[in-house]
Amino acid sequence: MARAASTFTALVGQSGGPTAVINESLVAAVLALRGFKDVKKIYGMRHGVNGLVRESPSLIDLTRTSEDHLRLVARTPSAALGSSRDKPDAHYCTRILDACRRLNARYFFYIGGNDSSDTCRIVSNLAQESGDDLRCFHIPKTIDNDLMGSDHSPGFPSAARFLALAFMSDSMDNASLPGVKINIVMGRHAGFLTAAAAIAKIGGGRSAQKVAAHNGPHLVYVPEVPFDSNEFLRSVEAVYARLGRCQVAVSEGVVDARGRPIATTLVDNLDTDMHGNVQLSGVGALGDALADLVKNNIKAPGGSTLRVRADTFGYLQRCWPDRSPIDVKEARAAARHAVRLAAQGHTSGSIAIARASSAPYKPAFRRIELADVAGKTRHLPSEFIEPGAGLAGCGISRAYIDWCRPLIGNLPEMGRL
Amino acid sequence: MARAASTFTALVGQSGGPTAVINESLVAAVLALRGFKDVKKIYGMRHGVNGLVRESPSLIDLTRTSEDHLRLVARTPSAALGSSRDKPDAHYCTRILDACRRLNARYFFYIGGNDSSDTCRIVSNLAQESGDDLRCFHIPKTIDNDLMGSDHSPGFPSAARFLALAFMSDSMDNASLPGVKINIVMGRHAGFLTAAAAIAKIGGGRSAQKVAAHNGPHLVYVPEVPFDSNEFLRSVEAVYARLGRCQVAVSEGVVDARGRPIATTLVDNLDTDMHGNVQLSGVGALGDALADLVKNNIKAPGGSTLRVRADTFGYLQRCWPDRSPIDVKEARAAARHAVRLAAQGHTSGSIAIARASSAPYKPAFRRIELADVAGKTRHLPSEFIEPGAGLAGCGISRAYIDWCRPLIGNLPEMGRL
Repeated sequence: MARAASTFTALVGQSGGPTAVINESLVAAVLALRGFKDVKKIYGMRHGVNGLVRESPSLIDLTRTSEDHLRLVARTPSAALGSSRDKPDAHYCTRILDACRRLNARYFFYIGGNDSSDTCRIVSNLAQESGDDLRCFHIPKTIDNDLMGSDHSPGFPSAARFLALAFMSDSMDNASLPGVKINIVMGRHAGFLTAAAAIAKIGGGRSAQKVAAHNGPHLVYVPEVPFDSNEFLRSVEAVYARLGRCQVAVSEGVVDARGRPIATTLVDNLDTDMHGNVQLSGVGALGDALADLVKNNIKAPGGSTLRVRADTFGYLQRCWPDRSPIDVKEARAAARHAVRLAAQGHTSGSIAIARASSAPYKPAFRRIELADVAGKTRHLPSEFIEPGAGLAGCGISRAYIDWCRPLIGNLPEMGRL
Repeated sequence: MARAASTFTALVGQSGGPTAVINESLVAAVLALRGFKDVKKIYGMRHGVNGLVRESPSLIDLTRTSEDHLRLVARTPSAALGSSRDKPDAHYCTRILDACRRLNARYFFYIGGNDSSDTCRIVSNLAQESGDDLRCFHIPKTIDNDLMGSDHSPGFPSAARFLALAFMSDSMDNASLPGVKINIVMGRHAGFLTAAAAIAKIGGGRSAQKVAAHNGPHLVYVPEVPFDSNEFLRSVEAVYARLGRCQVAVSEGVVDARGRPIATTLVDNLDTDMHGNVQLSGVGALGDALADLVKNNIKAPGGSTLRVRADTFGYLQRCWPDRSPIDVKEARAAARHAVRLAAQGHTSGSIAIARASSAPYKPAFRRIELADVAGKTRHLPSEFIEPGAGLAGCGISRAYIDWCRPLIGNLPEMGRL
C-alpha cells in the first residue's frame, strides 16, 4: 500500500468575478500538474470551494481531459469551472480542509482575488496547525487590479484593453453627435480600470503617445479622489464650453468626502450583496443619476437642453474575447509558477507579478506570503492621479499611461477630419 | 467662362447615429468623386445638412485631402464629418436647396437612415420642381437595419457582430456566476439587432451551426412581438428552473399589446427627444426596471433572493472597432454605386443591397426610388420570429441565423468543461 499513500489529489478552483484569462490560469495549472509523479487525480472544483464542501463534492475530473479541449477552454473568457462569491470564514475553511482530507488532496490552487487569497490563508493555517501537508496556493486574478504586492494582476490588462478601445471609439461617437457622455467603469474601490480610459487620449498606431486634448476622456473620476458633485458639474461645464462636448469616465466605486458611495447618495433602494456591499455592477442607476444631475444643472448655449447620455459598460468589461497578449502569457505563467513552487515543497503562497524591465516590458514572478495579499485592497498610487490636471486636465497622469500602456497590446489608429 | 459653368461642387454628408463603417462610405464616395471631370470641389457637410444651411455653411474641403489620411478616417468608427439628428421639413429643405445653389452643387450625397432618405426625397423633389439639375442620392446606413427595400444595410453587420460576441461572452460569464442576466439591445422599433444575439447559440469555430440549448441567449424579445410582463416572468422562471440561469436579450424598443413602449410602462420620467420620441438609448432605466420585475416576482430555490443583473449595451454597439469585413466592403460599394449612378445622369435614388447568392454569400447593389425608402420602417419578417419556440425556445428562428450569420465574419470558438 506504500504506492497508494504516495499518490495524491490536486484541486484547482476559480473564484470571484470571471475574467477573459482566468481559464488560461486554470489550464496552465492543470497541464503543469500532469507532470507531477505524486499526483494521481486532478479535480476542478465546481463553483470554487462552494462545490468542494457539499455532502457530495461537485468536482470535474481533469486528469485526462484532452489537451486540445483544454486549450479551447483556456481561450474562452469566463470561469469554466464555475465561480463563487462565497467569502469563507474559519468554520467554512474547516469544512474545506475536511474535504481536502477526504479527497487525499496534497495540492490546493485557488485562482481569484483578495477574498480567494484569504480563503487560501485560512485553509493553509488550519492545515499547518493540524500537521497536514497541504500545499495551498493563491493564483492571482482580478480586473480591478487591487491585489497588494503586484505591479498588476492577470485579468486587468485585458479589461484595461477593453476600456481603452471603448473610450477611443465612444469618444469618436461623442464627437459625431456632441453632448455630455458619462461612462461608468468597473473596478470597485480601486481606480486602475477607470484610469485605463485615459489611454484613449493617446490612442494607437503612428500618432500614439501624443496627448490629444480633444480626444476623450476629458474627465476621469476614480474612487481614490473624493467625488464632489459641484466640482464635477463645474468641470463638465468648463469642458463643454471649450470643446462643445464632454466624455467622462466614472468609476462605479466613487465616494464622497465622507466615504459614502456616490451611488447611494444619488439613488434610493440600491441592492446590497450578502456581505452588505452596495451592488455596483449590473445596474445602470449611477450613470443615470449622474446624467440627470448634469441635465438638471447645465444648459446648452442658448438655454436649450443639453444632450446627456450615460452608458454603464457592465460585464462586457471582464469577459470580452479580444484579450491582451501579455495578459494571456502572464495568466499562464503565474499559474505555472504556483505549481512549480508547490512542487519544490513550498506549503503556501500567492504569486506576485513584478516588472523586471520597463523598456522592453518584461515581467517577473515571485512568491509572496498569503497574509500579505489576503483581504487587503490596493489603490491607485498617488503618482497616477492628478485631480484637475494630468493629461490635458483629465485627472490621470502620464506616469499611469507609461505604466499601463505596455500591458494592453496594440490599439488601432483613429483618424479625424 | 464656359469652363467655370461646367465645373461643379459635390456635397457629402452623414446623418443619424454613427456606425463602425459610415466613414467607409464617406471616403469611398469622396475617392469616387475625384474621378469626375465636372467636379471641381468636394465638400463634406459638418453635422449633415445642419452645417449646410448656416449663414456661413460649415464645410470641410475634401477635394485634396491625402488618400492615406482618408483611408485612416475610413477605418475609424463614428461619423467623421459630424452627424445630425435634424429631420428637415419642406421649409428646411428649401434652405438646403438654396445652399446647394449658392455652392454651385450638382451632386448631393447623404449617408444615413430613414430620415436622411426623406431629406434627400424632399430636396430632390424641390430641385426637380424648380428645374435644378441636382443629383440627389441617399447612401444607406443604419445599425437598426430598418430600411425598406434592402436585404440589409451597411452598419448592421458590424453591430450584429458586436452583439453576437457580446452574448457569447456574457453567456459564459453568466454560466460562471449563475443568475438571471438581462441585456438591453439597440435597434429602436426593429428587432434585427436584438435577434443577432441568437447567433451566440450556435457560436463560432468548429462547433458552429449546432444549436446549444445551454448557450445563451435563452430568451429574445423583439419589438415585433408584443411584450407581456407575465409571460416574460413565466418564461424566465421556466428557463431558470431548467438551467439554473437565464440570459435574456431585450430590444430597447419592446412594446406592450397596446403599442406602448415597455420602458414607459415600467419607468417614470423618461426623456423624449425633439421629435417627442422616448429616449431609448444612453439610459439604463429599462434594464433596471426589468431586473426589478424579476427580483420582485421570482425567488431562487429555497426562497432566497435571485441574482439578477441588467446591462444596457449602449453606444459601444454602434462604434466598436472590430468590424465585419463584409460590412466594410458593402459600405464602400454602396457609396461607389451611388456615385456611379449620379455620373450616369440619374437625378436621384437610394442604394439597396440585395442577396445575389446565399452560398457563397454575394451581394448585389441596385438603385431604388427615394420615395420607397424615405421615412418608412422595415420590421423583422415573421419567418425570423417564433415566439415561445425558435432555436431552443429563444424565439428567433433558424431562418434568421441562416440570413444573418454570413454577414458578420468569423467568431471565436468557445469551450466549456
